[in-house]
Amino acid sequence: MESLQVHFLSRLVEPAALRGSTCVIIDVLRATTTIAFALEAGAKEVIPCLEVDDARRCAASLNAGTFMLGGERGGKKIDGFDLGNSPDEYTPQLVGGKTLVFTTTNGTRAMLHAGEADTILLAALVNVEAVTRALLRHAKVDILCAGTDGEISRDDVLTAGAIVDQLLGAVEGLKVNDEAEIAADEWRAATAYGLVECLRVSRGGRNLVELGLDNDIRAAAELSRLDVVPIFKNSRITRLVAAS
Amino acid sequence: MESLQVHFLSRLVEPAALRGSTCVIIDVLRATTTIAFALEAGAKEVIPCLEVDDARRCAASLNAGTFMLGGERGGKKIDGFDLGNSPDEYTPQLVGGKTLVFTTTNGTRAMLHAGEADTILLAALVNVEAVTRALLRHAKVDILCAGTDGEISRDDVLTAGAIVDQLLGAVEGLKVNDEAEIAADEWRAATAYGLVECLRVSRGGRNLVELGLDNDIRAAAELSRLDVVPIFKNSRITRLVAAS
Repeated sequence: MESLQVHFLSRLVEPAALRGSTCVIIDVLRATTTIAFALEAGAKEVIPCLEVDDARRCAASLNAGTFMLGGERGGKKIDGFDLGNSPDEYTPQLVGGKTLVFTTTNGTRAMLHAGEADTILLAALVNVEAVTRALLRHAKVDILCAGTDGEISRDDVLTAGAIVDQLLGAVEGLKVNDEAEIAADEWRAATAYGLVECLRVSRGGRNLVELGLDNDIRAAAELSRLDVVPIFKNSRITRLVAAS
Repeated sequence: MESLQVHFLSRLVEPAALRGSTCVIIDVLRATTTIAFALEAGAKEVIPCLEVDDARRCAASLNAGTFMLGGERGGKKIDGFDLGNSPDEYTPQLVGGKTLVFTTTNGTRAMLHAGEADTILLAALVNVEAVTRALLRHAKVDILCAGTDGEISRDDVLTAGAIVDQLLGAVEGLKVNDEAEIAADEWRAATAYGLVECLRVSRGGRNLVELGLDNDIRAAAELSRLDVVPIFKNSRITRLVAAS
């Protein structure tokens, strides 16, 4: 790896600037965390949809019994959907072998923004180590924080920082931008304060606390618990198979 | 004070959202630092100009001997100008009692972006304490980092963090956004690393190091050395006179 840039919101980088790059999308509370859990639980693939209606239409085109419909609006499960956006809902019993049609706003928007990148991976705290390992083979990496409702969100920034911190330790002479340095400092500060507490008071976390979803924050904070790297390609998210 | 928001770039906040607010502009390497030095040295007022030609036209409308022409492009003094953008050029002998016509891109753009705010103040590390004291009387404060060439710059972010850190200590129950928390963490990290070194490797600092302007970085890092608060009003920057 030669260059690593962090962008605190996807709109802070032009899509054309991502050509030739490996992009990492972070929406840690909760989309990228939940998608990592779903793939770890054996979901065959995840189809991310920007709008609820897109998700319903997509589901209608699939055979009954082959898919689950998941996602949230305002932090809550959507009427008629099988699953919300809590990582622990995504069990092997429910999603194993199935297609997951999933709607989330911030995360999906960031994935679409990165459309010109060579490769698009998804990261959360639960798979920091697996993502970092996968990134080592890529020359130019851009990390896009999804943010919350168009605003920079500390939860995504500190997750980006966790990846930067590992890569700075692993790659000598790595060129990083100022946002990468700030993110790494935020990560170190967060680990000193306590990760769960930092997530709870973040823009993405406060809403979850209000909804009584503390468990989701604790699940999102389980650092490098999962050995899965989601990859977004041809409108689908699957598990990246490591090169031998 | 009730609410304090930091914006890592001025374009991250809509001008209309700044109505009723007190805005603080930060372009620490070097515009807001140099302007603070110039006012401290007795300059009567500073007229900020976006373009070099605007500055020349403005100067042409003033009486000879009443003004100095200052500013930079690419870090260097402009042809035919009296002064560059190094804080230590702005001595009482040169600028005392005079109007300073000053051109700088990032800082001026941020001031113009804040045009709908109630009050616009300028901050740098050299006047953190004076600015913080002035802000305590204002209910809603927005800090705008100018950035460097449209990108988030660590030097501006850590300066914003120095103000946030002081205000969090002074105002109980202060409501801050995630960017304010990240900035405060960056400030604490910067003081642990060493302020001058942090500025040197920042986006704003690297260019100055290349130009051999290390002295300017050291001058910019002299925390709270100046008891001056620049205020931008009616297209002019003057010294804020403290309320009795």
